[in-house]
Formats: sequence, C-alpha cells, structure tokens
Amino acid sequence: MATRIHNFSLSLDGFAAGDPQSFETPFGHAGQRLHAWMMATRVWDPEHGTSGVDEAFAQQYWRGIGAEIMGAHKFGPPGWQDDPDWRGWWGEEPPFHTPVFVLTHHAREPLEMGDTTFHFLTATPAEALRIASEAAGGQDVRIGGGATVARDFISAGLVDHVHLVQVPIVLGRGTQLWEGLEGFEEAYDVETTASPSGVTHLVFTRKSPLVTS
Amino acid sequence: MATRIHNFSLSLDGFAAGDPQSFETPFGHAGQRLHAWMMATRVWDPEHGTSGVDEAFAQQYWRGIGAEIMGAHKFGPPGWQDDPDWRGWWGEEPPFHTPVFVLTHHAREPLEMGDTTFHFLTATPAEALRIASEAAGGQDVRIGGGATVARDFISAGLVDHVHLVQVPIVLGRGTQLWEGLEGFEEAYDVETTASPSGVTHLVFTRKSPLVTS
Ligand SMILES: NC(=O)c1ccc[n+]([C@@H]2O[C@H](COP(=O)([O-])OP(=O)(O)OC[C@H]3O[C@@H](n4cnc5c(N)ncnc54)[C@H](OP(=O)(O)O)[C@@H]3O)[C@@H](O)[C@H]2O)c1
Ligand SMILES: NC(=O)c1ccc[n+]([C@@H]2O[C@H](COP(=O)([O-])OP(=O)(O)OC[C@H]3O[C@@H](n4cnc5c(N)ncnc54)[C@H](OP(=O)(O)O)[C@@H]3O)[C@@H](O)[C@H]2O)c1
Repeated sequence: MATRIHNFSLSLDGFAAGDPQSFETPFGHAGQRLHAWMMATRVWDPEHGTSGVDEAFAQQYWRGIGAEIMGAHKFGPPGWQDDPDWRGWWGEEPPFHTPVFVLTHHAREPLEMGDTTFHFLTATPAEALRIASEAAGGQDVRIGGGATVARDFISAGLVDHVHLVQVPIVLGRGTQLWEGLEGFEEAYDVETTASPSGVTHLVFTRKSPLVTS
Repeated sequence: MATRIHNFSLSLDGFAAGDPQSFETPFGHAGQRLHAWMMATRVWDPEHGTSGVDEAFAQQYWRGIGAEIMGAHKFGPPGWQDDPDWRGWWGEEPPFHTPVFVLTHHAREPLEMGDTTFHFLTATPAEALRIASEAAGGQDVRIGGGATVARDFISAGLVDHVHLVQVPIVLGRGTQLWEGLEGFEEAYDVETTASPSGVTHLVFTRKSPLVTS
C-alpha cells in the first residue's frame, strides 16, 4: 500500500494554479494551460486524443487507487463552504469512484454521488492518511492536491510516489508547490521523461529504507 | 548574429545559485549540485567524462561565440569591486577566449588575460549588447549569467536562444531566474530533452517574426 501523487501540473516557476481562483476561473489566469497536455490525450478525448507517453502517465492516476485526499480549494471555489448546495466541480458522476477525503476547517456531512463519496475532515496529514488508508481497502491512496495539500503531505514524509508534469510556461503568481520543500529530493530517486508535447514528466520514487540506511 | 544563453543551470524552484555567495562558496549552499551534470562530461573531465547528450549540449557554449556579457556577481564574490587585485575566478588563462563585458556599477580598466579581455561596463542591456556585438566580429554574443543579468536580457527581449538545464533539486533560496518573466515563453518555441543523468535540457528558440505576426 502506497501513497501517490499523479498528474500534478506545474509551471516552470512552480505554480500549480494561477491567480485568483474563482468559480469562473478555477485555475486563475493559468486557464487551461497547465492541463492542456492531458486534455490532448485519450484520457480526456477518447476518440481523437493521443495515446503516447502523456496518456500513459495520465492513466496511472486511476490505477489501483482506493481513496483520495484533496484540499478544500480543489473541492470548490472560494466561498463554497458557505453554500450548502455546493457538490463539487464534477457533476453527478464524479470521476473518482472511491471515497474522497476533503481536508477542510468547515466539515459537513458526507456527500454520496454515484460511486464516489466525499467525506469532509479536519485532521493532520498523518491522521487523514490513516483514515483514508483504512477506507482504501488495501489499495493505494492518492493525494489529489492542490499545492498546499501536496506540499504538506510531501514535507511530512508521507508520499511514496510523486509524479509532476512540468509545463514550459512562466505564470508569475498563483499557488506554489516548492515553498518549504528544500532538499525533499534527498529521500527520492528521480526519473525524468520529456514528452514530444513539450511537457516534462518528473517521477520521484521514495528510496527504499534498506538502501538509504 | 544571435544572442544566446547556454548551460544555465536551475533548481526545480528556479534558483541559479544558492545563498550566501562568498569566496569560499561561489554558489552558496548549492555547492556543486547545479553543475555536477556538466562536471561529469568530457567538457570538464576529458579523459573519464561522458560524451552523451549532456556533453553535446554543454559544448554548444563555445561554438561560434565572439563575446560574452556577464554580471558583476559572476565575475567575483561580494566585495571584489573593492579589491584592485581581483582578476576573476578562472586563473591566468580564462576559458572564454573572447572579449568579456562585465556589467558593474564599479567600472575599472580593462584586464587582459591570455586571449580573454575583460571590459567593465555600466550600461543598459541594449547598450551593452550593441557594444558586445561590435566586439564579436560577426559571431554570436553569449549572455553568461548570473540570474539577474540573464533575466534582464530575456525580459528586454534581447535573447534569441535560451538553453536551461533543470536539475531535480529544491534549493529553497538563492538567486531566482523567473521573477518578472511571466509569459516570456510566448515569444519562443520550446524543445525539452530529458537526460539519463537526471537533468532536463530546455531550449527556447525565439519565434521567427514572420511566423508570429
Ligand atoms: N496543478 C494541478 O495538477 C492541480 C491539482 C489539484 C488542484 N489544483 C488546483 O489547485 C488549486 C487549489 O490548491 P491550493 O493550494 O490553493 O489549495 P488546496 O491544497 O486544494 O486546499 C488548501 C485548503 O484546504 C484546507 N486544508 C488543508 N489542509 C488541511 C488540514 N490538515 N485540516 C483542515 N483543512 C485543511 C484549508 O482550507 P480551509 O481552511 O478553507 O478549510 C486549506 O486552505 C485549485 O485551483 C485547484 O484546481 C491543481
Ligand atoms: N546557474 C548557472 O548556470 C550560473 C551561471 C552564471 C552564474 N551563476 C552564479 O550566479 C551568481 C551570480 O548571479 P546574480 O544574479 O547574483 O548576479 P549577476 O547577474 O552575476 O550580477 C548582477 C550584478 O551585476 C551588476 N549589473 C547588472 N546589470 C548591470 C547594468 N545594466 N549596469 C551595471 N551593473 C549591472 C550589478 O552589480 P553592482 O551594482 O554590484 O555592480 C548587479 O547586482 C553567482 O553565484 C554565479 O556563480 C550561475
């Protein structure tokens, strides 16, 4: 059982979303630029999308996952906590198909939609991971982002596999991944793959304790 | 005749040098981590170094260059301006073999060393480029860094080719390249190449005006 981050898109200057986040612009001024690489694949467009290295990486998102943990700002735009009718961005059949644990200081009752159930949770990263792992039934737990949650789980040493997708754009502002992660790479092996689409896949795999000790 | 940046190494979080810069630690706490990729090649170690994609890129540094422009902090550690005997980091046979223009607010007399001559210049990027281009005798001008100078020339729209080498480490602090470069990529085509050594080469080539207009 492992903890994984997948398809986490970053600009060259380390932003995972632009500014400001709103209902109309979930990724701020980044628009769709951070995810255009994925929207060009069959994951997004089964008929006309590509099936090369970008699709191969993108598909890993769903493989063997039993639960997701996400941040409050991924679940909805600023202010969703005050709207009892907000049910997430994903329509009535969200694409998760597992329990999803939304970290928030404004917890509410669980929300069942299709075969996805959203649970709202105030907890430390380690506690949240313990709860999600139990719910995952022996499968892996995905840390779904945004940057705040990804960074908190990485710096707590809780993530085994980190797949980042670097998009060659400079956003200038937004939500930063790297702050406070100085030297995090020392605990990982890294593999980099450049895609013909222009993005670079960086995969960090936690070193085996047997090798590092 | 073109203006080029080569072998410009960056951490994942966009730092081209660590902190603090000093005589003992020219790259601050980054040590040699930003340049280990190049030191492993034949460029640095002709006998035992590698001759793969990292060497191929590294060699471009010298090809067809008639002059370099560098910043004051590349030429010496903090305080070199107050030391009349400071002659650069590179010994009596500096590896440039062309005129080198050092941008500084503390200009001094030119310094001839081997077939490299250092000229000290207070000028805008555009003025400095005009002067260096004249000295380059029809060959290209290299913008040699550091990050401050690289950023100033890129944001002034003066650089035709930008070769960055992304090293998969997070430095946390130091001299940043990206600040103020939001959207710079719009004027460029980009090509990315992952090296088996773990670094990623990003090459930005300025779009032809015929194509963009
Ligand atoms: N680039 C990508 O691949 C990618 C991936 C996922 C998401 N995103 C985007 O990233 C943006 C969101 O990222 P973000 O960094 O702004 O926010 P986020 O990580 O989604 O959420 C952070 C918020 O979650 C709540 N939270 C976090 N940890 C908590 C804990 N331990 N206990 C209780 N509450 C906790 C807090 O909100 P409250 O205090 O308000 O409850 C906190 O401000 C969105 O635009 C989203 O679409 C991008
Ligand atoms: N990662 C890489 O590949 C790479 C490449 C090259 C260098 N480096 C490293 O980067 C560090 C230096 O970078 P940096 O960003 O701190 O400094 P820098 O770009 O080397 O130099 C900046 C300084 O140059 C002077 N200057 C710049 N523009 C000027 C102008 N138009 N007119 C007059 N003076 C001007 C100013 O100094 P004064 O006001 O003091 O005169 C300014 O503070 C060093 O550690 C160096 O070894 C790394």
